[in-house]
Amino acid sequence: MLKRSNIVTPKEELDAFYEHLRGQHVTPAWIAEATGHEPRSKAVPFVWHWRDLRPEAMRAAELVGTEQAERRVLRMHNPGLQGSSAANTLVANIQIVMPGEIARAHRHTPSALRLIIEGKGGYTVVNGDRIPMSPGDLVLTPNWTWHDHANDTDAPVIWLDGLDAPLVRMLEAGFYEQFPEEAQSLGEGADGNVAKYGAGGLRPAWETPGGKYSPLWHYPFTQARAALEKLAAEQPGSPFDGVILEYTNPATGGPAMPTIGCYVQVLRPGDHT
Amino acid sequence: MLKRSNIVTPKEELDAFYEHLRGQHVTPAWIAEATGHEPRSKAVPFVWHWRDLRPEAMRAAELVGTEQAERRVLRMHNPGLQGSSAANTLVANIQIVMPGEIARAHRHTPSALRLIIEGKGGYTVVNGDRIPMSPGDLVLTPNWTWHDHANDTDAPVIWLDGLDAPLVRMLEAGFYEQFPEEAQSLGEGADGNVAKYGAGGLRPAWETPGGKYSPLWHYPFTQARAALEKLAAEQPGSPFDGVILEYTNPATGGPAMPTIGCYVQVLRPGDHT
Amino acid sequence: MLKRSNIVTPKEELDAFYEHLRGQHVTPAWIAEATGHEPRSKAVPFVWHWRDLRPEAMRAAELVGTEQAERRVLRMHNPGLQGSSAANTLVANIQIVMPGEIARAHRHTPSALRLIIEGKGGYTVVNGDRIPMSPGDLVLTPNWTWHDHANDTDAPVIWLDGLDAPLVRMLEAGFYEQFPEEAQSLGEGADGNVAKYGAGGLRPAWETPGGKYSPLWHYPFTQARAALEKLAAEQPGSPFDGVILEYTNPATGGPAMPTIGCYVQVLRPGDHT
Amino acid sequence: MLKRSNIVTPKEELDAFYEHLRGQHVTPAWIAEATGHEPRSKAVPFVWHWRDLRPEAMRAAELVGTEQAERRVLRMHNPGLQGSSAANTLVANIQIVMPGEIARAHRHTPSALRLIIEGKGGYTVVNGDRIPMSPGDLVLTPNWTWHDHANDTDAPVIWLDGLDAPLVRMLEAGFYEQFPEEAQSLGEGADGNVAKYGAGGLRPAWETPGGKYSPLWHYPFTQARAALEKLAAEQPGSPFDGVILEYTNPATGGPAMPTIGCYVQVLRPGDHT
Repeated sequence: MLKRSNIVTPKEELDAFYEHLRGQHVTPAWIAEATGHEPRSKAVPFVWHWRDLRPEAMRAAELVGTEQAERRVLRMHNPGLQGSSAANTLVANIQIVMPGEIARAHRHTPSALRLIIEGKGGYTVVNGDRIPMSPGDLVLTPNWTWHDHANDTDAPVIWLDGLDAPLVRMLEAGFYEQFPEEAQSLGEGADGNVAKYGAGGLRPAWETPGGKYSPLWHYPFTQARAALEKLAAEQPGSPFDGVILEYTNPATGGPAMPTIGCYVQVLRPGDHT
Repeated sequence: MLKRSNIVTPKEELDAFYEHLRGQHVTPAWIAEATGHEPRSKAVPFVWHWRDLRPEAMRAAELVGTEQAERRVLRMHNPGLQGSSAANTLVANIQIVMPGEIARAHRHTPSALRLIIEGKGGYTVVNGDRIPMSPGDLVLTPNWTWHDHANDTDAPVIWLDGLDAPLVRMLEAGFYEQFPEEAQSLGEGADGNVAKYGAGGLRPAWETPGGKYSPLWHYPFTQARAALEKLAAEQPGSPFDGVILEYTNPATGGPAMPTIGCYVQVLRPGDHT
Repeated sequence: MLKRSNIVTPKEELDAFYEHLRGQHVTPAWIAEATGHEPRSKAVPFVWHWRDLRPEAMRAAELVGTEQAERRVLRMHNPGLQGSSAANTLVANIQIVMPGEIARAHRHTPSALRLIIEGKGGYTVVNGDRIPMSPGDLVLTPNWTWHDHANDTDAPVIWLDGLDAPLVRMLEAGFYEQFPEEAQSLGEGADGNVAKYGAGGLRPAWETPGGKYSPLWHYPFTQARAALEKLAAEQPGSPFDGVILEYTNPATGGPAMPTIGCYVQVLRPGDHT
Repeated sequence: MLKRSNIVTPKEELDAFYEHLRGQHVTPAWIAEATGHEPRSKAVPFVWHWRDLRPEAMRAAELVGTEQAERRVLRMHNPGLQGSSAANTLVANIQIVMPGEIARAHRHTPSALRLIIEGKGGYTVVNGDRIPMSPGDLVLTPNWTWHDHANDTDAPVIWLDGLDAPLVRMLEAGFYEQFPEEAQSLGEGADGNVAKYGAGGLRPAWETPGGKYSPLWHYPFTQARAALEKLAAEQPGSPFDGVILEYTNPATGGPAMPTIGCYVQVLRPGDHT
């Protein structure tokens, strides 16, 4: 008759055994904190207000040059987490580039999104393609793509960065490389990725995206907003989230980046998610 | 020592044997026409001129009602092929719907594309979604989708049909079903498939396309033309085909339909493919 | 009010119009034979008895050498089909190689299976790998793989060929090439594909199959029979087909060949499918 | 002229600003430890010797019943890591089940492998299928599969556990559930997963694996050893790793579990990886 065995051992004897085990780099796992029945996040809900962060970004731009800082970013750390990430697998930054400045070219295995908050122009160069940045735009720099940022306007450009750095660190897959020049050289055109992959249901028949990442790196807000407004007027959307669109990789129909899903949502008057 | 065997048998004896085999529904395959080293198409290059076909379509509309013809289509048959297909795996038709007419709802396993040639409006209903038809538009009715056509304008609507019927027939997978009503009922909106899946790099997060076919059934020519013109101005395109775009299934990034690839191409002055 | 139009035209006028259309290589599709609601195969059920075919194969071996016939194959043609295929998309042959003979090396885009019926040995060489052939074995020569057959025993080797040639022909994708030598040269080993890919749930970590076809070309009957017998003793199997196994491509878990599914089935006493 | 900006600010002023930022849950990321150019693992190479661990496992079995411990496992913690995992994403345990004992049924989202080290029998039940455990066998309990362990022999059964728990915890995807009974009920047969999916290149045509995990949960060492020995005798294997086989999911050809790759390797006399 098979059954669970029942053995009662004096506490002191057990404690001595456990202590002995630890000396051998072994843990008696049955006394560890019981596994929960559901995940419990250590991260806590938290709001960083723009009215607070913007002045800090401007102040940082006064005090620190892009010569001093590879990237001038304010990293938001979640009060519930150790380290400096906003969520368990994601880092969130406010980054600012002042008129006339560039942030030099590099690449890394963490993937990044940029959601433009403020600015009158400026651009990011991704693998040689010059991508304009307007408020509301989503700009991707997928893993291991060369990228530098520049501001050729007379107003600051400020955006939100999102990176999967904590996940990449856990997977011990973090690589980083400086570009040999300060910035990538630019050809005549701009935003070629949008011309080729940004039109719905069309792809350039003369090329096959080589990498594992999306060939589309720029999702202009004008397009996303038009799509949202049209749908908000005509369709109920999701019973849980209302009218919400996911940014996709047009070469696969899947998420914009494998490790970071990106969405844009409209809340109509009266909507309650 | 293994080698090819060499046996010389009198021709009459061989012929008698071959004749005997055929009586058993067996063919001596070694005397069959040798397999070619490359495919040789029986289909021949052929042009049907619009100046010739258009009057025939108008005449057909005079002589035959949509009550008489499930679909009023002129099928172009390739002079090199038996049967009535334009190419080995594809059928090509000119279809005309006159003012006030409908072509009743049905569905079938062959998939179809419609390339609108002429008209001031009219629409196709695909699985309940009302899709407007303007010249240059590509409209899909993928396999087993319900579809009917209607012309609510005062001018004829004429388009090119393309179907994979010969392939489906070879695979013995041809099914067909009449819709219980003359036409599908329509809701308020129109072109919901374009609102949801037609914007580049975006998808409605609240639904997952269930079937194996594209959720986008309408590729407006205005969008395709704008994309072509932008690329034609900025990019060299393919060294073989110049600036050519493939219509894709936005849910997969693959071809618009698995059995029929659809492309749109611009020839700039001086382009030579 | 949209509706189907009703136009009654005298038969002679219609006939004259139809005749005129045909002169322009156009068919009025609405008078064509109505599309059926379900596929209707032209192929008919038919049995070729082994007691009839075996003597014909032996007779063919007497009358025709492998010098005379690239392959000495008897092709079974379905009485319901034009041409010489056994089914709509498949060709079936009986092939015989006599003691001391080889059938010279070539390759083609149609894919082939060989199901060994009779023999005491012999082998097929697929892309340089020597594959022994025993009764019941399934041997694949996927599209564009080099293959030659040889019989180094003192008894005939006879097998069933299955090829997707009709489908390849329809797709106009038929290519064929002679190997520069009579036979491929052989190394020391044999059946390396089985050593590497034939063990369940294991793959050689040092190579990634390059092509689109299965890296396993030999499915020994001893393995299939053992698996069938074990399952037949322990499991009910399918309510429709009883205990039936599909041969798979171990690199994908999908069918052995994309265009030809291969199965092996046991009928237990009392089984009725 | 765009360039990097150069701003020199007194250290005290910077420090005060940084201090102020931290009060707002913001980190000036540019002063953080520079990202390395390559990943640097905190885990260190370490050997736990079987001669040391086996006595501890036996001692644990004396002192702690399976009534007291949901699982009687000794967890090896890497001296370079915080917490108690052996590597960054993996936990490794020694688990022991004594004669007559069972370890009660539960399930969890972390996936586990069991590599049997010692024993004369015993079994794991995975989703109702009774799986025998012999030394060298690999047994999987993929995520969210019910599993219990039992020892119906007169000798201890000891194995190595590997789990992706650290990764699951980071993704905040850890769920756990007790089975309503102490153990899953057993039918007549055993090892049905091997009968159906363990034979190379064959699959039961009457079922389609429903989940995202492998339908094969048992990789008997007799099979793996035979495959290794055959390959070791005939093939050079990898220039880096010699003759090494990966355990695969037969339904996809991919890894046995998406989060844990499993391999088995032979070192021939003279092999040097």
